[in-house]
Amino acid sequence: MEKTTETITRMFNAQSIAIVGASSDPGKFGYMTLNTLIEGGYEGRIYPVNPKAKEILGKRVYASLGEIPEIPDIAVIIVAAKLVPAILLEAADKGIKGAAILSAGFRDAGRMDLENEIKRISKECSIRLMGPNIQGISYLPNKMCAMFFPPMTKIGPLAIITQSGSLTTALAEWAFDEGLGISAAINLGNQTDICESDYLDYFATNNHTTSIMLHLEGVKDGKRFLETIRRVAILKPVVILKSGRSRSGQKSAASHTASLAGSDAIFSAACQQVGVHRADDLETLYDIAKGMALIRKPRGRRLLTISSSGGACTLAVDEAEALGLRVPELPQELIEELQTLNLPPLAHLSNPIDLGSLTADHYEQAALAADQHDVADIVLFNFADPVTATSEMVVSIANRIKASVAVCFMGGGKTEKEARLKMHANGVAVFSSPERAARGISAAVQTAMKNKAGTDTYTVKQSFTDNISLMSNCGSRFVLEPEAIDLLNKYHISCPANGFARTAEAAVEISNRLVYPVVMKIVSPDIVHKSDVGGVLTGLANSAAVTDGFKKMFDHLNVTVPKASLEGVLISEQAPDGLEVIIGAKVDSIFGKTIMFGLGGIFTEVLHDVTFRIVPIEKNDAEMMIRELKCTSIFNGYRGQPAVDQEAIVELLLAVSKLIINENNIAEFELNPVRLYENGAIALDARIFRYQAGPKVNSN
Amino acid sequence: MEKTTETITRMFNAQSIAIVGASSDPGKFGYMTLNTLIEGGYEGRIYPVNPKAKEILGKRVYASLGEIPEIPDIAVIIVAAKLVPAILLEAADKGIKGAAILSAGFRDAGRMDLENEIKRISKECSIRLMGPNIQGISYLPNKMCAMFFPPMTKIGPLAIITQSGSLTTALAEWAFDEGLGISAAINLGNQTDICESDYLDYFATNNHTTSIMLHLEGVKDGKRFLETIRRVAILKPVVILKSGRSRSGQKSAASHTASLAGSDAIFSAACQQVGVHRADDLETLYDIAKGMALIRKPRGRRLLTISSSGGACTLAVDEAEALGLRVPELPQELIEELQTLNLPPLAHLSNPIDLGSLTADHYEQAALAADQHDVADIVLFNFADPVTATSEMVVSIANRIKASVAVCFMGGGKTEKEARLKMHANGVAVFSSPERAARGISAAVQTAMKNKAGTDTYTVKQSFTDNISLMSNCGSRFVLEPEAIDLLNKYHISCPANGFARTAEAAVEISNRLVYPVVMKIVSPDIVHKSDVGGVLTGLANSAAVTDGFKKMFDHLNVTVPKASLEGVLISEQAPDGLEVIIGAKVDSIFGKTIMFGLGGIFTEVLHDVTFRIVPIEKNDAEMMIRELKCTSIFNGYRGQPAVDQEAIVELLLAVSKLIINENNIAEFELNPVRLYENGAIALDARIFRYQAGPKVNSN
Repeated sequence: MEKTTETITRMFNAQSIAIVGASSDPGKFGYMTLNTLIEGGYEGRIYPVNPKAKEILGKRVYASLGEIPEIPDIAVIIVAAKLVPAILLEAADKGIKGAAILSAGFRDAGRMDLENEIKRISKECSIRLMGPNIQGISYLPNKMCAMFFPPMTKIGPLAIITQSGSLTTALAEWAFDEGLGISAAINLGNQTDICESDYLDYFATNNHTTSIMLHLEGVKDGKRFLETIRRVAILKPVVILKSGRSRSGQKSAASHTASLAGSDAIFSAACQQVGVHRADDLETLYDIAKGMALIRKPRGRRLLTISSSGGACTLAVDEAEALGLRVPELPQELIEELQTLNLPPLAHLSNPIDLGSLTADHYEQAALAADQHDVADIVLFNFADPVTATSEMVVSIANRIKASVAVCFMGGGKTEKEARLKMHANGVAVFSSPERAARGISAAVQTAMKNKAGTDTYTVKQSFTDNISLMSNCGSRFVLEPEAIDLLNKYHISCPANGFARTAEAAVEISNRLVYPVVMKIVSPDIVHKSDVGGVLTGLANSAAVTDGFKKMFDHLNVTVPKASLEGVLISEQAPDGLEVIIGAKVDSIFGKTIMFGLGGIFTEVLHDVTFRIVPIEKNDAEMMIRELKCTSIFNGYRGQPAVDQEAIVELLLAVSKLIINENNIAEFELNPVRLYENGAIALDARIFRYQAGPKVNSN
Repeated sequence: MEKTTETITRMFNAQSIAIVGASSDPGKFGYMTLNTLIEGGYEGRIYPVNPKAKEILGKRVYASLGEIPEIPDIAVIIVAAKLVPAILLEAADKGIKGAAILSAGFRDAGRMDLENEIKRISKECSIRLMGPNIQGISYLPNKMCAMFFPPMTKIGPLAIITQSGSLTTALAEWAFDEGLGISAAINLGNQTDICESDYLDYFATNNHTTSIMLHLEGVKDGKRFLETIRRVAILKPVVILKSGRSRSGQKSAASHTASLAGSDAIFSAACQQVGVHRADDLETLYDIAKGMALIRKPRGRRLLTISSSGGACTLAVDEAEALGLRVPELPQELIEELQTLNLPPLAHLSNPIDLGSLTADHYEQAALAADQHDVADIVLFNFADPVTATSEMVVSIANRIKASVAVCFMGGGKTEKEARLKMHANGVAVFSSPERAARGISAAVQTAMKNKAGTDTYTVKQSFTDNISLMSNCGSRFVLEPEAIDLLNKYHISCPANGFARTAEAAVEISNRLVYPVVMKIVSPDIVHKSDVGGVLTGLANSAAVTDGFKKMFDHLNVTVPKASLEGVLISEQAPDGLEVIIGAKVDSIFGKTIMFGLGGIFTEVLHDVTFRIVPIEKNDAEMMIRELKCTSIFNGYRGQPAVDQEAIVELLLAVSKLIINENNIAEFELNPVRLYENGAIALDARIFRYQAGPKVNSN
């Protein structure tokens, strides 16, 4: 069978297109789409199809697909949803292999029956589908703009993939407006057949595309998406805007696309894990894509700003530093050299270099001198006033210095606008505010740094187990602690020395084999929150305390939770004090099994200072999880406490990742607390639930 | 003497202007400024002054100010800095009362001598100054654009005040570009005479200005600035962009404007305290100013979005909810009414309402129906595709419904651009991305809510003591705890019952009068961190323990800190466990004395979860300080702990505010910890330093 990337290649490069539902009414999408295709300069053959018309926009109209004198490479369909199945069958009969269905009214309108019908036809008749419920598809290298509007003609390095037709248009128009072209504008719609992952794979190797911007409201197949994006991000920079951050946003997205929103925190974690940028808003999506496409891969994170505006510089530097760029001081030799140049007497010779000059030559000289002294990896020209011949200077210097170049050109004056168009035409990224420039630059630097870090860090990981099915509503069963400990031991997760006892005598016997003091915890399938009901005793210092404690605990529990079945007690050595963390597992509706890490108590519950990864994780993921907590500095020793054993945390996270991957039957998992020491880490308590359907396990 | 606001009024409305340094060289600022003034359509009399020219740009040139046939209302000066003092004297001789000095090269270039000279001339000769080191001054109601460039002609509701000439230009051009005018564009420069506070006071009552945007790199006089902005914000919405957030940004700002940057956190606290918005970046500065100027005061925070794009809606709602707007569900009756209208069959009838229609009438019907059901306080029309006659519909509906109206119109297509111009011409705010719309709306709502909260909350507070002088480098002296406790008592700040003892016997006697257990703390002018050296003993349960503890402590300290003078011990009752907070005081380089509040330990030191206010504070400030901590929910009871006495915290904060205001001699102040209970709060330890110069106080 043809690979989907080959299908997309074939459809994008169609040499003949049937427009089914072409209309002579300028208010109808069937007219607009035909009009846009023609105005976009499509050079292939166009066949409007409409039984009621003879000619539209100067094109001969065909009454049906069958009448067309050749087999069109694709059919673009803009008819009422209920008519689409028949049209698809007709297209398949004709021998057409691909269709773009612009019509809405399928899953998006609750009509799963229609959606399933076109899906079935697609499979049975081998006709591949883009859409339905899309504004259209534009692929500019083929001058094919099969969209309601607007005609897109300026070819450039950005590929746009969005869930929303109007966002496709907005992003494309932003690009055209500033002389920056796009390679393609893809609208996902219902993704009945070809989906976001297919397009990503396609653009990963598309020669006309330098960076990919992706807007999503949900993810169709989390497992596949993650594998794809991981693979694609190695080949080409990707930036994602995922809406549905808020509760209302999730509802809106669900209503709009009927896709699962999943947890926002886990979506961010997934982006982090596979090395793609997540943008916070539409403009940043655009700026990052632009920066990654146009800023030549920076060698490092040192930023030099050269400016006609001290004020704009400060804003750029503020944002740059917040985003992790470095703003190095100028070396004395460079300052001395700059002083010998014929720069304006009031120029500030520090970083930022505030020239306050309207002469392009001054900027050129400063940039050349700085580059010879290897001061920076990126030079940002921050123009706020119209400098004569800016664009020529910038384009020339960008090719002559080792540092990468970016430009901020503010304001909407005519001079600036023309200069911006010229610079974009020559492949230099221009941003419209200092902060937006910093965001674009930072993304370019991060992309370069990531690739520098070596592909081994970002190689494709093993497929993770298919676990979404586990989300089904089957019940779950609390795993008794002795069994939980067996499970932890299997994965070499340290617990305090312990034993299970059904009687006070057995408890004493076990305690005597351990080091006092010991902890006694009730073992009962009916008691999950042991300490809440008095099911935990700590600091039992000798056998008498154990005997006494056993009796008191049972007497107490028989009164407070009379219906609970009490199996016995777990006796453990009492672990020394230490920093406490939580390691948990959670099943996300998009990505499946995830691992959670954070400091316990207030940090987790009040400050939500926790981090997630989709399992399996690798060593560098575990290290990042530790580093990205807001309170990460605590691990390095706080208030005279020694630093904790971070390698032990890494090992523990990897062990838990392995456990939740391998043990397919786990519904919930939490080690809380895990105590961290200068050497090693010990899990003091494990709360595990298995799915009911799972195999019965003896409770010791 | 003339008030400065009157001076500004006079200068802005000048009917005759001398341009000193007018040049015939188009590359020179002296040419550009004259040219801009003419092109801007200035209708007063223009007198170029240049001894070497006869005519420039068709205007007769005068050899000196003296030759001008009248007394010009203002002189605009664009000559080398060193020549400015002589020109100023000449202007004063002529009788000119105001000058705008565009020239740089004064304090900005380290030439304090020149700066001081023009300051002296200004005072002695009663000639008021704008600048120096500015791009110019534009006041559009007088068609006066005395700037290098560009000519500004479109009058509108926004006043621009910036520290940076090029940011003035950028902001103005953004406004002009989208058909939105400005009232004035002010560039602060060195603020040798007229400063940011003067301009703020001026625009507060300027009838042509609806909202004020202010960009700052530092503040000239913190005390005055705070008083002014507090007063102005009651009359007119103000939004501030203060750069210098980062270390490099602060350095850049210092280099650029030689103004104090102060603490960024305290600047934010000051904005919060006086009720002005602080924008995070240049675009947001603009968007907030636009929103506050054009969106009619919303009655509440309920947002309804009506859209042609489901995708854009979701983005708007995400940002809106993050900014505190509410996105209410539609009532069933409204949904039913909407169903009876002739809306597109695939419209989503929830909030957001996603019409997917290109017919303006559909939007109008939906908005009218929603307004009749009183669903929302603001309606956001989210257009992403060109809808026919959008602007007419929006302008009309904005005047017919109770809800306030805002528009997001994305993309740069011709239809959209024209519609945006028309809507702005009719006073409807249009934003270019969904998130930017949400930011503008949120600011309008906050401004309206603030005013609703009543002016009493925002009345002008008493002047705070002039305390910047305390920042001088004089030494400070640690206040012994018994003295510190006396000070706390004076302000009714609760401490545990206590007494000072020089001997073990006296310690026992005091302890016996208190309730055991007691705490013993060393009292020594040489020991600030008592517990670090073993100078604190807790849990002393009886007189024997006190005797024993006294001996051991002195023996120990005589060995570990042999040079410390040991005055005796403070015996206090041991306070019960409770939630611990810190209250501190800090002197900011801009705003003077400030009060700090936060939870202790990790919260302060690792998570920096602390909040500031400039003193004096009022009750609502204290309440806000509690609420704005990230961990504020802890005060309401955490993990079964009872809620703490928040009124007691408020009282304590007010008491500390009073203390640090009244006690002028305090250099450092910290209550750490303060323990909070269900009823009341107790300060367990006070660390206070006085300035050395202060009066000597007995240490008991």
